[in-house]
Amino acid sequence: MAQRIAVIPGDGIGKEVMPEGVRALTAAAERFGIEIELTDFDFASCDYYAEHGQMLPDDWFDRLKDFDALFYGAVGWPETVPDHVSLWGSLLQFRRRFDQYVNLRPCKLLPGVKSPLADRRPGDIDFYVVRENTEGEYSSVGGKMFEGTEREVVIQETVMTRHGTDRVLRFAYELAQSRPRKKLTSATKSNGIAITMPWWDERVKAMGANYPEVSVDQFHIDILTANFVMHPDWFDVVVASNLFGDILSDLGPACTGTIGVAPSANINPEGTFPSLFEPVHGSAPDIAGKGIANPIGQIWSAAMMLEHLGHQEAADAIVAAFEAVLAEGDKAVMTPDVGGTGTTEGLGRAIAARI
Amino acid sequence: MAQRIAVIPGDGIGKEVMPEGVRALTAAAERFGIEIELTDFDFASCDYYAEHGQMLPDDWFDRLKDFDALFYGAVGWPETVPDHVSLWGSLLQFRRRFDQYVNLRPCKLLPGVKSPLADRRPGDIDFYVVRENTEGEYSSVGGKMFEGTEREVVIQETVMTRHGTDRVLRFAYELAQSRPRKKLTSATKSNGIAITMPWWDERVKAMGANYPEVSVDQFHIDILTANFVMHPDWFDVVVASNLFGDILSDLGPACTGTIGVAPSANINPEGTFPSLFEPVHGSAPDIAGKGIANPIGQIWSAAMMLEHLGHQEAADAIVAAFEAVLAEGDKAVMTPDVGGTGTTEGLGRAIAARI
Ligand SMILES: CC(C)[C@H](C(=O)O)[C@@H](O)C(=O)O
Ligand SMILES: CC(C)[C@H](C(=O)O)[C@@H](O)C(=O)O
Repeated sequence: MAQRIAVIPGDGIGKEVMPEGVRALTAAAERFGIEIELTDFDFASCDYYAEHGQMLPDDWFDRLKDFDALFYGAVGWPETVPDHVSLWGSLLQFRRRFDQYVNLRPCKLLPGVKSPLADRRPGDIDFYVVRENTEGEYSSVGGKMFEGTEREVVIQETVMTRHGTDRVLRFAYELAQSRPRKKLTSATKSNGIAITMPWWDERVKAMGANYPEVSVDQFHIDILTANFVMHPDWFDVVVASNLFGDILSDLGPACTGTIGVAPSANINPEGTFPSLFEPVHGSAPDIAGKGIANPIGQIWSAAMMLEHLGHQEAADAIVAAFEAVLAEGDKAVMTPDVGGTGTTEGLGRAIAARI
Repeated sequence: MAQRIAVIPGDGIGKEVMPEGVRALTAAAERFGIEIELTDFDFASCDYYAEHGQMLPDDWFDRLKDFDALFYGAVGWPETVPDHVSLWGSLLQFRRRFDQYVNLRPCKLLPGVKSPLADRRPGDIDFYVVRENTEGEYSSVGGKMFEGTEREVVIQETVMTRHGTDRVLRFAYELAQSRPRKKLTSATKSNGIAITMPWWDERVKAMGANYPEVSVDQFHIDILTANFVMHPDWFDVVVASNLFGDILSDLGPACTGTIGVAPSANINPEGTFPSLFEPVHGSAPDIAGKGIANPIGQIWSAAMMLEHLGHQEAADAIVAAFEAVLAEGDKAVMTPDVGGTGTTEGLGRAIAARI
């Protein structure tokens, strides 16, 4: 039976990197005899909003829920739609309604990519950020009082549940247990954020009782970001709340040279709903339209999608292909963020040719 | 009239770096004929808690409120007192009750200090983080429901006010305006934190109307942390909410080589209450007792205190002294975090001798 994949390019460079993601996906599927069926959608983009006054059609849930996976580009075009409107109207809906409660993001220093950190080589940085993806600081609860006056007060509530916290912690512990170093780091801020975060620490500890082989430490988010820069080799699996995970999964890839290559998997581990795969980078209005965005974030996301769908070999072939092209480092092929003069399409074709 | 300064070492390495801060302060005061009167306090420490069951005596406010400044070390000893108890019982009280609504933190790459970033030299990194210091994400409002059961829900409210936000923005704009580059960067997350942060963006924009010479940009906190690593030279003055400022002011100094040298000023600009000066680093239980903590964060904080009290020359002399000692880079004098084998006291004495 064919794997049914929804293809949603979104905005900005999302529309430029998606064709390269699809090219790699198709090449890997052909090579390994995987039947895939791609369906394109133009919604979940600001262009769609311009036409329809909303980011998604009313029946989006039913139209997407039976796909095996969602392959997403990037969303946001603040010139025409405020970011909170476009994001809460699309990506954040998908994560929540499809209960994709794990956001899994590898941070790996790749051959051929220059790290902004001094003296770091491939192998030195290789960890996962496991981010809670449905609740926490990203809440829709709160409001304003005395609006527009000097007395104005604005409140936003962070909401954490045991259900929501324990399940992502379990995923993180399982992942740590499966890796050679078996090390888990928890991102906290229990010294300052004194209600939710001490409770988060307790849940981390409680879940740890089930995983005696996993060694656990924790850092407050301020010094943790500092340690990502000073000691990226300390980390194996890092588990974090929605906001802290968002921060760490941009900072981590930045330490590996470019966020242009970083992928992410928004996973519903039970498979009740489709999982979503997208690059970590956004729609990047500053470089959109120039054809120079790095497509590897999108391509690597295709590999994570294939792995999730059970096609490990095909996933490995994609990763091996972009690693080889990066290691070669042909300046005419590399995009500017990795030190070359190449284009999105050129780099995408070079990688597909290797698959 | 003598400047009356309260000296509060706190916990861990706070007790080790404070004598060096006092040594530098005294040396500068002597050289420039400034009369100072130091009063030591043992409260606001976990040792005090062990004896009294609380971090502060009941009359702390009255005992401290008439000082010209508070000189603080570091607080926290999680082995005996949970961090949220020790911090909310001391430092966070001072900031709030003395309305120290600006937390000012310079990030500067100093001569002789090796940055973890590749190819960065002194002069490349030189900016201020202006952090809101009394409200926002550090709130005491919230609670738990269905505690201890599977249905447990934990809520913590972020509270921002126009009063609290506008005054720190004004300070940041004024600072940017006074600097050659006149550039302000706002830390936001208005795409995800959809109630408070879009409102923060509006206040940044509104305040900007009063400062037409200042150029303003904004980044979401995730990509902003990435840019601290990839492009630290982009920044001049960065203004941020309490939590985001906390993160950025650890990450920034980490990019300049060590958080051991970073100072901070918790300022009540109106002078209604004393301002508080402390290093950015914490009590560092992992190295406490070894006598190897870098005292420069505490010493630089003394310089910020003297500047705040109107003694610019004395402040400059302290900064010039530690810059000279760092530039010399005598391994026997430098502490381990800056590549040497020296001690807290040795480095402190070398700096005082230069003043
Ligand atoms: C110790 C802690 C509560 C404090 C804070 O988060 O404000 C510290 O990290 C700081 O930056 O001064
Ligand atoms: C676009 C934004 C809402 C989103 C997030 O904060 O989750 C993005 O930064 C990400 O990391 O996927």
